[in-house]
Amino acid sequence: MAFEYLTNIPLDKAKKDYADILKDNGFMAKKETVPVPFSSGRVTASPVYASICAPHYPASAMDGIAVSASSTFGAGETTPVILDKSSFIVVDTGDPIPENMDAVIMIEDIVWLEDGSAKIFAPASPWQHIRQIGEDICAGEMILASNMKISPSAVGAMLAGGVMEVDVIKMPVVGIIPTGDEIVPPTPDPAPGDIIEFNSSIFSSMLRQWDAQPYTFPIIPDKFDEIKAAVEEALEKCDIVILNAGSSAGREDFSTEVIKSVGNVLYHGIAIKPGKPAILGYKNGKPILGVPGYPVSGILVIEQFLKPIIENWYNCSVTKDVYRKAVLSKTVVSGLKYEEFVRVRLGMVNGKLVASPLNRGSGVVSSFMKADGILEIPQGVEGYEAGEEVDIRLLREEKELANTLVAIGSHDPLLDEIMDMLHSVDNSLFMSSSHTGSMGGIMAVKRKETHIAGVHLLDENDGTYNFSYIKKFFPAGGVRLVECVERTQGLMLKEGNPLGINTISDLTKSGVRFVNRQKGSGTRILTDYLCKKENIDTSSIYGYGREEFTHTSVAAQIASDTADAGMGIYSAAKLYGLDFVPVCMEQYDLLIPDSAWDTPMVQKLIEILKSKEFHDRLTALGGYRLTDPGKVREHF
Amino acid sequence: MAFEYLTNIPLDKAKKDYADILKDNGFMAKKETVPVPFSSGRVTASPVYASICAPHYPASAMDGIAVSASSTFGAGETTPVILDKSSFIVVDTGDPIPENMDAVIMIEDIVWLEDGSAKIFAPASPWQHIRQIGEDICAGEMILASNMKISPSAVGAMLAGGVMEVDVIKMPVVGIIPTGDEIVPPTPDPAPGDIIEFNSSIFSSMLRQWDAQPYTFPIIPDKFDEIKAAVEEALEKCDIVILNAGSSAGREDFSTEVIKSVGNVLYHGIAIKPGKPAILGYKNGKPILGVPGYPVSGILVIEQFLKPIIENWYNCSVTKDVYRKAVLSKTVVSGLKYEEFVRVRLGMVNGKLVASPLNRGSGVVSSFMKADGILEIPQGVEGYEAGEEVDIRLLREEKELANTLVAIGSHDPLLDEIMDMLHSVDNSLFMSSSHTGSMGGIMAVKRKETHIAGVHLLDENDGTYNFSYIKKFFPAGGVRLVECVERTQGLMLKEGNPLGINTISDLTKSGVRFVNRQKGSGTRILTDYLCKKENIDTSSIYGYGREEFTHTSVAAQIASDTADAGMGIYSAAKLYGLDFVPVCMEQYDLLIPDSAWDTPMVQKLIEILKSKEFHDRLTALGGYRLTDPGKVREHF
Repeated sequence: MAFEYLTNIPLDKAKKDYADILKDNGFMAKKETVPVPFSSGRVTASPVYASICAPHYPASAMDGIAVSASSTFGAGETTPVILDKSSFIVVDTGDPIPENMDAVIMIEDIVWLEDGSAKIFAPASPWQHIRQIGEDICAGEMILASNMKISPSAVGAMLAGGVMEVDVIKMPVVGIIPTGDEIVPPTPDPAPGDIIEFNSSIFSSMLRQWDAQPYTFPIIPDKFDEIKAAVEEALEKCDIVILNAGSSAGREDFSTEVIKSVGNVLYHGIAIKPGKPAILGYKNGKPILGVPGYPVSGILVIEQFLKPIIENWYNCSVTKDVYRKAVLSKTVVSGLKYEEFVRVRLGMVNGKLVASPLNRGSGVVSSFMKADGILEIPQGVEGYEAGEEVDIRLLREEKELANTLVAIGSHDPLLDEIMDMLHSVDNSLFMSSSHTGSMGGIMAVKRKETHIAGVHLLDENDGTYNFSYIKKFFPAGGVRLVECVERTQGLMLKEGNPLGINTISDLTKSGVRFVNRQKGSGTRILTDYLCKKENIDTSSIYGYGREEFTHTSVAAQIASDTADAGMGIYSAAKLYGLDFVPVCMEQYDLLIPDSAWDTPMVQKLIEILKSKEFHDRLTALGGYRLTDPGKVREHF
Repeated sequence: MAFEYLTNIPLDKAKKDYADILKDNGFMAKKETVPVPFSSGRVTASPVYASICAPHYPASAMDGIAVSASSTFGAGETTPVILDKSSFIVVDTGDPIPENMDAVIMIEDIVWLEDGSAKIFAPASPWQHIRQIGEDICAGEMILASNMKISPSAVGAMLAGGVMEVDVIKMPVVGIIPTGDEIVPPTPDPAPGDIIEFNSSIFSSMLRQWDAQPYTFPIIPDKFDEIKAAVEEALEKCDIVILNAGSSAGREDFSTEVIKSVGNVLYHGIAIKPGKPAILGYKNGKPILGVPGYPVSGILVIEQFLKPIIENWYNCSVTKDVYRKAVLSKTVVSGLKYEEFVRVRLGMVNGKLVASPLNRGSGVVSSFMKADGILEIPQGVEGYEAGEEVDIRLLREEKELANTLVAIGSHDPLLDEIMDMLHSVDNSLFMSSSHTGSMGGIMAVKRKETHIAGVHLLDENDGTYNFSYIKKFFPAGGVRLVECVERTQGLMLKEGNPLGINTISDLTKSGVRFVNRQKGSGTRILTDYLCKKENIDTSSIYGYGREEFTHTSVAAQIASDTADAGMGIYSAAKLYGLDFVPVCMEQYDLLIPDSAWDTPMVQKLIEILKSKEFHDRLTALGGYRLTDPGKVREHF
């Protein structure tokens, strides 16, 4: 059941060839006429010319009197002219100029006589103080060229120019066909083996951002005839077709066969990762895009191939790509054979934009949600070293990035609560946290890649937390240790504790499946320490090598019965309704480098730590003891 | 009928006080629940937590066999283990792992025996090659904080996390009340004095961009009771109210009285230009914004005051403001008393961003449409000198600016046709042209502020065009003169030529109203020359001092009967159905500095000049003779 990739076409060549073959086969936008007031954001299909002038009549530009300029000729300081009241008309700014008049004299330049006539001391030149016809727009003038996005002020300019309707490019209708036997519609309660069909919702959302109209078909099972019928129906109803394969092996080959049976396949297999098995198909001028089932692959294929199709449809770009230089926090290795798209988190720390690669698994949709940018590694490049400067395509605004509190270090659900509070209190502030364990946090502070690091590192020698580690890693100081919380660590166990686990030693019992945390995490150090203290050979604990990265993911394994026990904090056990045997209280602190101390993000964080709301939220989570959060325990 | 401005509050203070008083009076967003698949682009009203894990079952990460890891312990190169076919299950990538199993062995690590059992040479560690439950998202984990914009991938993450509905902030409904006796709905055929009501269409379009829902009321005449009734109705139906005054004097005072009668006025009169007469009103927590009638003032007031209200509603920003440094091409003088917003065109010429101020009239809506950026001159600053570096808020994308062909110089409608063709041929290219006359174009080339300049400058001594001027102004060379067209200049006259004008001398006849072009334009130089040749005293021509900036605006004055004659090109006369007495053929060329020659914009321009389509379009316009457009006549 091996994949057969027919081609490994470089991305740029694939894009160009696809655009060319579609064009050669008649790919072309449809047009429609819409009322101008509702045309903002649409794209013009042809040039728009004004049909009337704006203003369409000469209007007074001042408060004063409208006159015939020739009746004022000869007026001077010593030779005033008196205008009979039948020879002028009082006008306000904006009033039309009567037909036989061609100048306005300002109110302050007039001496009024008793009989209502006006005495003036200077001649008016023709058309003085008059807003000319067409000052804004002249009839016949091109207001907008074709293929231009209509702005709100362009709507105003068209209406001012007497244009009531405008030819615009119709939104392309994109049919999305989800396929796969195991695929089920979104549900809060899927059965094992069910794959939730959320790709069409992601793709639809992307399409709407690009001014395309998604049309999602019901899920089609893995049957050639049914898929073929759906594609044929989509070709009838839509301008562009997306065939979304399931994520199991071999599925894509089915798509190729279907596309070949109704139209043509240009390429199957593109030199990109993720997204390799993309299929570039078409029938006449209509694109049929075969998109792999894994969501991250799917998103990238849609972005790389469907977006250009829509841009060709509109003949104008639909998004803005902004690239910025960033320093890589970790070495990234990439294959030479393909162009790779790596999701990264970005943080502006100490004036430097730092990019940290996220989970590269193509099934991990949250990695895309968390991503602040994309590192595009060209084909033929092996990757980049940690510390190297690279170009990142931004997925978030630069200003947001500059106002984002970066947290790298030990995981605790309280960080999410801080994230929520920080943005609610000040909507210009954001937070992004990465869970690397306490030691990872200390290293990130050392490398100046984070504003704060959650740490809870036990010193085995004296049972103290954090101090000895910070002294060791920051001999020159320059960091503050800020008190956060004490939290209860313990054994998380299945509800009712069916295996009767009460101590660390019980983990070695036959039939007990343990799930551990990753090396370098404070919880792992604690677990190792507890085992050592009890003289337990960790190789006798089944699953000791099975590593998870957060308290919640350990709890999730136990709750779903793939493990019986794990070490973690009380709030995670509570969240999953697990039994809990407390083992110790530990100090969870925040390490903050001096360089970050005065940023608005950190100052707001300290405020939040001291707030009643923080106290209340943590009480609701459970298992925390708050003494004086936000206090600087020591300035090293 | 003088304005009475109660206050001259600095912009930032006004914004802050307005936000504070609204908040104190209960301004707050409404919420609603929407299905997750349709939530992209909406803003979360509360944090979103996952209700299930994703994946929600342990899945094979490889093609191979699922086994119980303990059944493989002890396997080695010399001590293979044979797994009976009842003790494993063949799995593909993505398949669920059966309940009693906890590891996957890759297909390539298995030797198959004849009876279907599998021989392995290494032990499987628990959970190897298995995608863990919650690898992507753990149940209970915060997927999104509150007040965050929902991205397409967040839609996927929520659905993967079992979240089917999400609480979002309701779009605020903004009532727009247009008022004014002279205001009429958009029409292609307004009567003199009618003011077309396009403001509500502009405001609505802006509001939609900011995710607010506009609700426009019918036009209300200038009657206190009727305006009051409309405001009361709007307060019932909407979350925010905009009262849009007419543009005549005194109108705003009416708005104040109405707002005071139903609620409160915080400030009337803000230290900004345009937009001074803005009224910041409210009833309880509902904003009632009094917006001046001139469209440019209105746009700025909406942007400065309504956008922050909407951002406070969502508690998140709705647009991205990008500022860039640019060099001013002209000195801008500003009053000390207010903060001024000057619309500018931007051009990236010779690696330098150049900002050219546009028409500052607050009635000129096209100036906003043409603007690429806004120069914000703070209160207390007198303005900036030409050549000074200033911060510009961009209204267009930087990438677009870099790909925009800048044309400054003599006006000809053919430039609009080039603009349309340039963008149609290559949608990454744009064009922006400013009409400063031929001499203005030469100066812009000298100051390195333009890529091309349209020129048609007659040398009075020998009747040649352009050459002598370029030699004089560019003694060191560095420019190319590119052939464009010969065009017919002549007298544009009312249809049927009722005044019997046949020569330049006829312009001095009594009753003939002339309209001229601005000094420095090639057409003005030609007109001056023709008068001199005929020994005509230009002060004897009525209206010789009345200046328009384009051929079309001269034609527009004649067509609308505010003038009888003007000098201009045939295509403009034809556009307005005017009579035309040809005077001469003149050479209209493009002057291009060497530094711009190799840009993609200029190279594409040359292609266009040589194209059949350009020839066809100019034939349709009429009055042009094309010999070899695009040819370099001389490289100086």
